[in-house]
Amino acid sequence: MTAADPVVATDIPGEMRRIGAAARDAAAALAGASTEAKNAALNAAASSLRADTAALLAANARDMAEGEARGLTAAMLDRLKLDEARVAAMADGLEAVAGLADPVGATIADWTRPNGLEISRVRVPLGVIGVIYESRPNVTADASGLCLKSGNAAILRAGSESFHSAGAIMARLQHGLRLAGLPESACQLVPTRDRAAVGEMLTMTDYIDVIVPRGGKSLIERVSAESRIPVIKHLDGICHVYVHAGAAVEMAVAVTVNAKMRRPGICGAAETLLVDRAAADSHLPAILSALIDRGCEIRGDAAVQALDERVRPATATDWDTEYLDAILSVRLVDGLDEAIAHIERHGSHHTDSIVTGDAEAAATFLKRIDSAIVMHNASTQFADGGEFGMGAEIGISTGKLHARGPVGVEQLTSYKYVVRGDGQVRP
Amino acid sequence: MTAADPVVATDIPGEMRRIGAAARDAAAALAGASTEAKNAALNAAASSLRADTAALLAANARDMAEGEARGLTAAMLDRLKLDEARVAAMADGLEAVAGLADPVGATIADWTRPNGLEISRVRVPLGVIGVIYESRPNVTADASGLCLKSGNAAILRAGSESFHSAGAIMARLQHGLRLAGLPESACQLVPTRDRAAVGEMLTMTDYIDVIVPRGGKSLIERVSAESRIPVIKHLDGICHVYVHAGAAVEMAVAVTVNAKMRRPGICGAAETLLVDRAAADSHLPAILSALIDRGCEIRGDAAVQALDERVRPATATDWDTEYLDAILSVRLVDGLDEAIAHIERHGSHHTDSIVTGDAEAAATFLKRIDSAIVMHNASTQFADGGEFGMGAEIGISTGKLHARGPVGVEQLTSYKYVVRGDGQVRP
Repeated sequence: MTAADPVVATDIPGEMRRIGAAARDAAAALAGASTEAKNAALNAAASSLRADTAALLAANARDMAEGEARGLTAAMLDRLKLDEARVAAMADGLEAVAGLADPVGATIADWTRPNGLEISRVRVPLGVIGVIYESRPNVTADASGLCLKSGNAAILRAGSESFHSAGAIMARLQHGLRLAGLPESACQLVPTRDRAAVGEMLTMTDYIDVIVPRGGKSLIERVSAESRIPVIKHLDGICHVYVHAGAAVEMAVAVTVNAKMRRPGICGAAETLLVDRAAADSHLPAILSALIDRGCEIRGDAAVQALDERVRPATATDWDTEYLDAILSVRLVDGLDEAIAHIERHGSHHTDSIVTGDAEAAATFLKRIDSAIVMHNASTQFADGGEFGMGAEIGISTGKLHARGPVGVEQLTSYKYVVRGDGQVRP
Repeated sequence: MTAADPVVATDIPGEMRRIGAAARDAAAALAGASTEAKNAALNAAASSLRADTAALLAANARDMAEGEARGLTAAMLDRLKLDEARVAAMADGLEAVAGLADPVGATIADWTRPNGLEISRVRVPLGVIGVIYESRPNVTADASGLCLKSGNAAILRAGSESFHSAGAIMARLQHGLRLAGLPESACQLVPTRDRAAVGEMLTMTDYIDVIVPRGGKSLIERVSAESRIPVIKHLDGICHVYVHAGAAVEMAVAVTVNAKMRRPGICGAAETLLVDRAAADSHLPAILSALIDRGCEIRGDAAVQALDERVRPATATDWDTEYLDAILSVRLVDGLDEAIAHIERHGSHHTDSIVTGDAEAAATFLKRIDSAIVMHNASTQFADGGEFGMGAEIGISTGKLHARGPVGVEQLTSYKYVVRGDGQVRP
């Protein structure tokens, strides 16, 4: 705890429940808020972020100084850092969310029963969403914007290292809410760095409807293990590209290189390449050269090593590893069935792509691979809500319940049934 | 443990994990099974139940004898009892599920991106569904049928008192699976009455994707508290009928009487009646008389007591009580806002109905009441998947995540994204 933390550590449960109750009240107000009011809040918050860029950078400088003093790595400091471009990107993001269609109130389906009852399934907000994240300050704005647009109140718990930055961003979001006549408690930041607040949040089943953890695997695992509230989570992204014997060589090279090397550290980056043994001589040398030329380390099985002396040996753990780096494991398979079996055994059910000109092989792959996203002749790096045309996303769910794949504003809603009659009673 | 329990109590964890692994394998097979094969299994199981009615009744007689010896109440014994009609109803139910549209493989949405990527959202099974229930043996067939049709493997844990009946029913379900060439382990019954098996089930996050508890509140609460697996549950059904001043008297009487008295013990039965103070003299006497004449006990506030001497006084707890019996709490409200506030405070977000001829009041009620099912001029007893035209239901969800309201075969699915390209890479 520092002097900047306003909450007395001994009353974290009470403070968290006060925040929860305020969020629950705000959720009721937000559920009935007009699209115009929500968009006005988003746009006003965006303007406020832009206008107060200097103050945001000053708050961020405090976090950066504390982070350096605590010995954060260069990568962690880079995630933590705000600059003018990153502030502008947050503001742009809020305006983009304002531009999305409002999911709330939309009729998903409707039908009339033989007895004349008219039934419709209508989207409604989930209620209160708890977001627990790490060092990237922009999540404060991005997650709040998506929750607000979908009519949900948000309780955000920022990583302790981004405490000042997150607070400064939240102040602008709440300014936007105020200007739009919406309750400030629609978006709240947990006002303490004490880790006990996270534990408390995860038990608040009366106040929080769903928890979205955003961060590394250890955070996700802790939240999943402890939470008494349903969790929408992204665990691993062990994504595969499978080059089938029916693939065109140039396409196989282009898709594989993009899937791994465009941004090796995102969850949709390929981690393993499977190549049909029948295509090893015709396809793989060009793929390996293109990857290695771009600085990718290849870890291959014996057959792959035999094709290029720069290939390092893969060990058993490589097939289950999410490198998030310029490293790719590569093995040969004896056709479609073995490729599917490998992916089902070692994959994380995130995103997997087949490259082939064979429509039947593609159809089998798309049907049998049980992943959130299955692709044919496309780079796994397209695994993204924006690329799917869903607007921004709060994350990509690797679970199957409620939301799977990119989680955008529609996925942050539930529905209710509206039944209209003229006095029907049940026989 | 009795001699009939084949599992050694000391190896419950190992046995449960063996069952889980078999279910996971079966789920992979079921996900790709044809509609024809699934329907063949359902129809064959139905035929087998009918053909083996005598054996089922004999197994049930063992449960009934043990139940009587253990001093089960008459109501519990009635729930436990099978007779020819109940066996026939189970068989009919399986055939009805066979007649439903197969949700698996259906395209929920599809669109094309500016870069030419074709994206579709396609229904897939959830995987393995764990069902934990109490004494009604028919749940064995009903839940298995819904899971099978939706391409999911099922692990069922029957109440200990229905152990023999559930086993006999499961044998016929597995016979149907065998005849259709599907794995028998697609539907499995936990082969022990030891309660430790339930605790074990609730930790099997690797093998079970969702838990559906079916039974009384104490079962649901125990499962919710202990489960490490997401739970789709039905908690309370504190349903309201609100008679607005704009209601026609005859409709108000008919809807209220049906909502309470058609079957007072179902979750969609009304538990509280709210009546506008402006309609007290004009509407309420007729409603009260109709209810009391049909044997309903009325617990009212002072104003309601003043209208009919047969009304008993309501206490504070009545407004939060799910009677599941021929009892109704009744209070006057000062219009729509107070009615909505009462329902939001005391209701269980299950099913609530307004009776009125005032379209504006109805629209406000339907929008602002945050319940799974909101109704206008219809009896709350319509809260049922069959009545909604969804076919059978495994239950009604009072949660907001994944499924809300009746849970039928569609709600037992997830989806995946299928992306088709011609070599697109992400810029």
